[in-house]
Amino acid sequence: MNIYLDNAATSFPKPETVYKAIDLCLRYKCGNPGRSGHKLAMEANHIIFNTREQIGDLFGILDISRIIFTSNATEALNLGIKGLLKKGDHAITSTMEHNSVLRPLHRLEDDVVISVTRVKADKYGYVPVEAIKNSILPNTKLIVITHASNVVGTINPIDGIGETAKKNRIIFMVDASQTAGALSIDVKKSKIDILACSGHKNLFGPQGTGFIYINHGVNLLPLIEGGTGTDSKKDIQPKLLTERFESGTLNTPGIAGLGAGIAFIKKTGIKNIREKEILLTKYLLSQLKEIEELNIYGLSNPSSQMPVISFNIKGMDSGEFGTALSDKYNIMTRVGLHCAPLAHKTIKTFPQGTIRMSMGFFTTEKEIDFTIKCIKKILKKK
Amino acid sequence: MNIYLDNAATSFPKPETVYKAIDLCLRYKCGNPGRSGHKLAMEANHIIFNTREQIGDLFGILDISRIIFTSNATEALNLGIKGLLKKGDHAITSTMEHNSVLRPLHRLEDDVVISVTRVKADKYGYVPVEAIKNSILPNTKLIVITHASNVVGTINPIDGIGETAKKNRIIFMVDASQTAGALSIDVKKSKIDILACSGHKNLFGPQGTGFIYINHGVNLLPLIEGGTGTDSKKDIQPKLLTERFESGTLNTPGIAGLGAGIAFIKKTGIKNIREKEILLTKYLLSQLKEIEELNIYGLSNPSSQMPVISFNIKGMDSGEFGTALSDKYNIMTRVGLHCAPLAHKTIKTFPQGTIRMSMGFFTTEKEIDFTIKCIKKILKKK
Repeated sequence: MNIYLDNAATSFPKPETVYKAIDLCLRYKCGNPGRSGHKLAMEANHIIFNTREQIGDLFGILDISRIIFTSNATEALNLGIKGLLKKGDHAITSTMEHNSVLRPLHRLEDDVVISVTRVKADKYGYVPVEAIKNSILPNTKLIVITHASNVVGTINPIDGIGETAKKNRIIFMVDASQTAGALSIDVKKSKIDILACSGHKNLFGPQGTGFIYINHGVNLLPLIEGGTGTDSKKDIQPKLLTERFESGTLNTPGIAGLGAGIAFIKKTGIKNIREKEILLTKYLLSQLKEIEELNIYGLSNPSSQMPVISFNIKGMDSGEFGTALSDKYNIMTRVGLHCAPLAHKTIKTFPQGTIRMSMGFFTTEKEIDFTIKCIKKILKKK
Repeated sequence: MNIYLDNAATSFPKPETVYKAIDLCLRYKCGNPGRSGHKLAMEANHIIFNTREQIGDLFGILDISRIIFTSNATEALNLGIKGLLKKGDHAITSTMEHNSVLRPLHRLEDDVVISVTRVKADKYGYVPVEAIKNSILPNTKLIVITHASNVVGTINPIDGIGETAKKNRIIFMVDASQTAGALSIDVKKSKIDILACSGHKNLFGPQGTGFIYINHGVNLLPLIEGGTGTDSKKDIQPKLLTERFESGTLNTPGIAGLGAGIAFIKKTGIKNIREKEILLTKYLLSQLKEIEELNIYGLSNPSSQMPVISFNIKGMDSGEFGTALSDKYNIMTRVGLHCAPLAHKTIKTFPQGTIRMSMGFFTTEKEIDFTIKCIKKILKKK
């Protein structure tokens, strides 16, 4: 039995329809989208348009030309952060962010001379609205916050932060890498100006996909200029979206898969997905709690977190433990810092990190039972 | 019959092994590469490593950590150009470049204050070494040249330009979007410091793939910072390659397909591919030349060009003609400026553009015969 508990890194498996959509696209529909007027190019165009519509529908985005495909969430976050911030600007973020937020901000601190406040989350990884509010300066241009921690799954209060941002005329950017597809997100309701998502996690697309939504009135500089198939008379980047930010050939087969992934979510119902994942989290948590050698981090409150659980073992190296799970029992987890050093400092697990088990829609109770059994076996032998 | 003559935009079809490699990766091997130590992550690592080795082998690159995966050639070109050039630098390029070179350079002219010389190619689209040499200034930092025109297929003398660059201690960057996989390229022989390639053209990978090779001693700033799965304790980007430039989750299934594409090229033999494409070019050219209504641009010399032919029709709009080919006969070409405005100015087809027929390894003489018959039919009716 292979047990995959690394869905926070990339979801596996994908729905069968995702595999089929990618293969179909590659074999029969894969002209260059937006480049020519012939049949195969139009088929590719249609795929891109369809996925853009699916995304718009899922996140309450009316103008789908504001949805820009990227190769992953990291590219989306870099575009949002670097495309927006200029010399003298101040940005607010939290200690729960992934390096895909922390590192671009650090680069800008060094090169462009911006200033950054990293609001400290509480020990459960939660970022209170008040703490954000108290960090606002006259030159605050951007608040960028993860919707949920990739280390402990804690969900942040984006509605409240969005409200605060709006009142203070600050641009609000959400990193929804861990939540898009698994939690309902409405960009209007949460007053999100920039939404960055990975396609290959809870949206069930393949690796190589992601996107950014950019609200009207938010003007970003592109990260990448190039051929857009439009305005080709000029050697300057067009102003019009989507072309302004989508240079070069898009990942059409990947985007076909992403569209199929979102279609699966809609068919299943995002509420049903959420309910199932809450039950799985409850089940895993209740069993882990019974093992007294474990220190479990985060809220331990299934309905306030994603199905991501981090823990350590008293008196045992977590790397060794993760290897034992993987090598002896084919239980796949992720051990270490999860590209989020400040998050581990916040929950007091730096620098040793944690063992992270992240479930997905296809995880079963039977797999959890087996995992618990194996954890106990390893502990007995130690 | 569907006749695909748009291979310069994206190759179609791909070898069967490419489709299979992608599906296999997605279904059985698609953990997050470089992020965890478990079985699926290691399978993904292995795929990434294997394709990197294939690329190294094909282009004579010994240190494969200098090969960085990107989502397309455009991202690779942006990384090379923007990662290198600083205020006060001078760059030399040609009028035959794609907007993926022209637009990033233009952006830097405006924002960073660099200067750019756009060397005029001759009317066949050829960029003489002498013209490059004559443009060198004391502050010239970069020469960036397309290996072959995407409009007329003319192959540029990269060995001579590389020699000149080396003598003058200038960094030499080649855009091999049109040639990688179809012409032999050896980075050492041609003294290439930076090589930018798309994966989805002659390398037979899927869309969403590309790469850049960065020679030792060439220090670029990353375009994108983020999680690298390494050095995670720090919120600054690691210095080590490949991680420095590969942030976020890579397109593992796409890279699996790219590896299979390169394996196909090696098995077939790049010389055999080139020979076949020269014969196809010869065959198509000889037949097109017999149609007196056509103005054919470029060298019309199969062994000095790629299998890309641009032409116009006396007294007929090329857009209308391309549409007729596509709608009536399912012959897929690309009409317009091909994202290369200065190239069309050089060959005197600006702003109307041309009809471009670009063949690939899977094009057949039978398809060419049918295409010629259809061209004649359309001309009769006009």
